[in-house]
Amino acid sequence: MVTSRRIPEATVARLPIYLRCLHVEAKRGVPTVSSERLAELAGVNAAKVRKDLSHLGSYGTRGVGYDVGFLIFQVRRELGLTQDWPVAIAGAGNLGQALAGYAGFRARGFSLVAMFDTDPAKVGQSIHGTPVHPIGALPAVAAEEGVAIGIICTPPEVAQELADAFVDAGVKSLLSFAPTVLSSPDHVALRMVDLSMELQILSFHSQRVAEQLVEGL
Amino acid sequence: MVTSRRIPEATVARLPIYLRCLHVEAKRGVPTVSSERLAELAGVNAAKVRKDLSHLGSYGTRGVGYDVGFLIFQVRRELGLTQDWPVAIAGAGNLGQALAGYAGFRARGFSLVAMFDTDPAKVGQSIHGTPVHPIGALPAVAAEEGVAIGIICTPPEVAQELADAFVDAGVKSLLSFAPTVLSSPDHVALRMVDLSMELQILSFHSQRVAEQLVEGL
Repeated sequence: MVTSRRIPEATVARLPIYLRCLHVEAKRGVPTVSSERLAELAGVNAAKVRKDLSHLGSYGTRGVGYDVGFLIFQVRRELGLTQDWPVAIAGAGNLGQALAGYAGFRARGFSLVAMFDTDPAKVGQSIHGTPVHPIGALPAVAAEEGVAIGIICTPPEVAQELADAFVDAGVKSLLSFAPTVLSSPDHVALRMVDLSMELQILSFHSQRVAEQLVEGL
Repeated sequence: MVTSRRIPEATVARLPIYLRCLHVEAKRGVPTVSSERLAELAGVNAAKVRKDLSHLGSYGTRGVGYDVGFLIFQVRRELGLTQDWPVAIAGAGNLGQALAGYAGFRARGFSLVAMFDTDPAKVGQSIHGTPVHPIGALPAVAAEEGVAIGIICTPPEVAQELADAFVDAGVKSLLSFAPTVLSSPDHVALRMVDLSMELQILSFHSQRVAEQLVEGL
């Protein structure tokens, strides 16, 4: 493989944002997109867009921009979305069930192959078409299904235990929604999502609005 | 108010990350934290941490670092988290219910005052202590409760309609989990969360792991 994989982490984190914007343009039937337009949609500056896309070997055409369809392909290829990654979810509570039914996952090329829970009422059931296994079956099922990404939607008290179980089963990428800090070995990619973070950013905006109202009195 | 509110958006977006890291240090009983340590925990570089915190008027002490407790207070104050922001959720499906029960929200000072749904089986019920109202009651309830932040957890087809209803009711900040692109007037802060984005970033890592395995053969 000749492609250099040394793309900055920050660029990788922006690729899904570009991809979403590109899908919007594609849906509108737009054939090409300028770096300025893409920057506006993505909420970054145009120079950053050009720099980011240059890491993909994509430079656009002066005065024309980037071909939307080809750029979607390039970004998806770079993100590995042209492959099908088997995903498993630990925790079939409200959040796990919401993720299992989340239309965006399947649309982006992730296939949910298994869920795990301790609740006997859930084990053996199928949620949005995905079977729920007992937690004890995680090592065997994850190995058999070749799970690439494990999602943790359990209460915080047991989240680390489930992360460890995924790691022991050979899973190399973990995504945790549990409101606690987890750790993983160096060779495992671990991302923790704090659903309250976006609310905190909005809190900042709410405060500004409130201050402007006071100033306007 | 003398404080300048001109903090860069990118800094605002990092403040919740610093806050989470600071809570980790506080829990460990650590009294002070260096910019290097905070940078390591937050996954950014130390110069950026110092620059970001300087916007809050926080400079730390050379050779000692920042007082953890005071910095937590400063970040919370800057984010407006020392106030209590009333939050409402439109859509009491799995995701709405998961958010209603999400421990992290209450811990960060957000109070969920109302949920809205069309399902007659849910209307009139209480989910994790929060009453579910019919969608038609949104304008009256949002105004009465002084809702500052509206969260949209509905199917994509009706998400814009709910966003508009929140805006009409005077709500100034919106957070949407619906897998679709929404629009709002300029005076309303709108953030759209794509739950598949984190998975896409992990897909990139999964691909790298797969390539390394191939290279290692």
